[in-house]
Amino acid sequence: MAKLRVHNFSVSLDGYGAGRDQSVENPLGEGGERLHEWVFETRGGRAMIGEDGGDTGVDEDFFNRGVAGIGATIMGRNTFGPIRGEWGDDEWKGWWGDEPPYHHPVFVLTHHPRPPITMAGGTVFNFVDTGIESALERAFEAAGGADVRLVGGVSTIQQYLRAGLLDELHAAIAPVLLGSGERLLDDLDDAVANYEVAEFVSSPAVAHVVLKRAASKTS
Amino acid sequence: MAKLRVHNFSVSLDGYGAGRDQSVENPLGEGGERLHEWVFETRGGRAMIGEDGGDTGVDEDFFNRGVAGIGATIMGRNTFGPIRGEWGDDEWKGWWGDEPPYHHPVFVLTHHPRPPITMAGGTVFNFVDTGIESALERAFEAAGGADVRLVGGVSTIQQYLRAGLLDELHAAIAPVLLGSGERLLDDLDDAVANYEVAEFVSSPAVAHVVLKRAASKTS
Repeated sequence: MAKLRVHNFSVSLDGYGAGRDQSVENPLGEGGERLHEWVFETRGGRAMIGEDGGDTGVDEDFFNRGVAGIGATIMGRNTFGPIRGEWGDDEWKGWWGDEPPYHHPVFVLTHHPRPPITMAGGTVFNFVDTGIESALERAFEAAGGADVRLVGGVSTIQQYLRAGLLDELHAAIAPVLLGSGERLLDDLDDAVANYEVAEFVSSPAVAHVVLKRAASKTS
Repeated sequence: MAKLRVHNFSVSLDGYGAGRDQSVENPLGEGGERLHEWVFETRGGRAMIGEDGGDTGVDEDFFNRGVAGIGATIMGRNTFGPIRGEWGDDEWKGWWGDEPPYHHPVFVLTHHPRPPITMAGGTVFNFVDTGIESALERAFEAAGGADVRLVGGVSTIQQYLRAGLLDELHAAIAPVLLGSGERLLDDLDDAVANYEVAEFVSSPAVAHVVLKRAASKTS
């Protein structure tokens, strides 16, 4: 059965997935880019931005899992871009330029309808204003049997976690203190009973955690 | 110069240092004891409870740092016991029996005065109702040049952290989800600028983090 998976979601030691004061110039918030430094030390992460070199090993293994077997992507609107409210002139087409790195259908959660945008390289941005379950159904259908990746942000992941719709969550704890921001695992309360810690493996750079939906809850 | 240090403070993946619903029967809160399992797998941790065996290696190395060079201990009142408000009949003498494992002066932060209690084996519980700075001064004096260990709990550590009085904090991140409880690194905001991540080393059981007061702030 196809799964909904989160991969390579970096959090600080104090649990934040993004710093404070997010803006167009600083989409990850103050200090937030330090959370992701480990990615760009891996061969796969460097290839993603068109650069050679990089390390193999534990970090790259985890990084690569995030692209294997994925047929569609879901993201929150704030991950797609900085615009709030109505879409306005429809000029904004994401952070990723003319050829985004997805190469498959992407479903953007929003309260404001917008026609799909077809980009170079196979990425199509679809805007879903009918809720997280509806977005997931459409994404599974578009993925055609492959898994769906949920890229973020924090509040979107929390919604899927609390609803018990997320099958796997890979977080990378980075040795960084942010002090404030958006916290990923924030007062999940009883929702944690649905998940177990399936993997806990560290490199010198980050501690990788994989949460999986508990077997008793998937039936 | 003598230091104030926190050691072996276990936190969950979601950042809690104790579970919810703490009580006399369950002083670490619901699920809280799972945070500390790694300690009792080490040789030093087993010796502390009078048992043989246990592993050596990274976890034991960190565990042992918590007893080396320490001449006095500070703890919050809730770490000393479950009694709130006035001390009542003075019967409560801590969780640790007639011979507590400290073997040196211990300073318990409280709003309610109480005479010192001398226990077997060199531990003396002193009750300080004049604030965290005053407790620290008395502890440094009692330690006679050795360092002072702050054992917890969460809110006491946060007070010393925010005041910039803590020199070192060793936390052990355990692969456990609690969902709610008392969070150690909770919205520290600008206080994090005083600290840097000095060590980040993992075993299969836990990820060890050592925060140290940034050099520029200690002068």
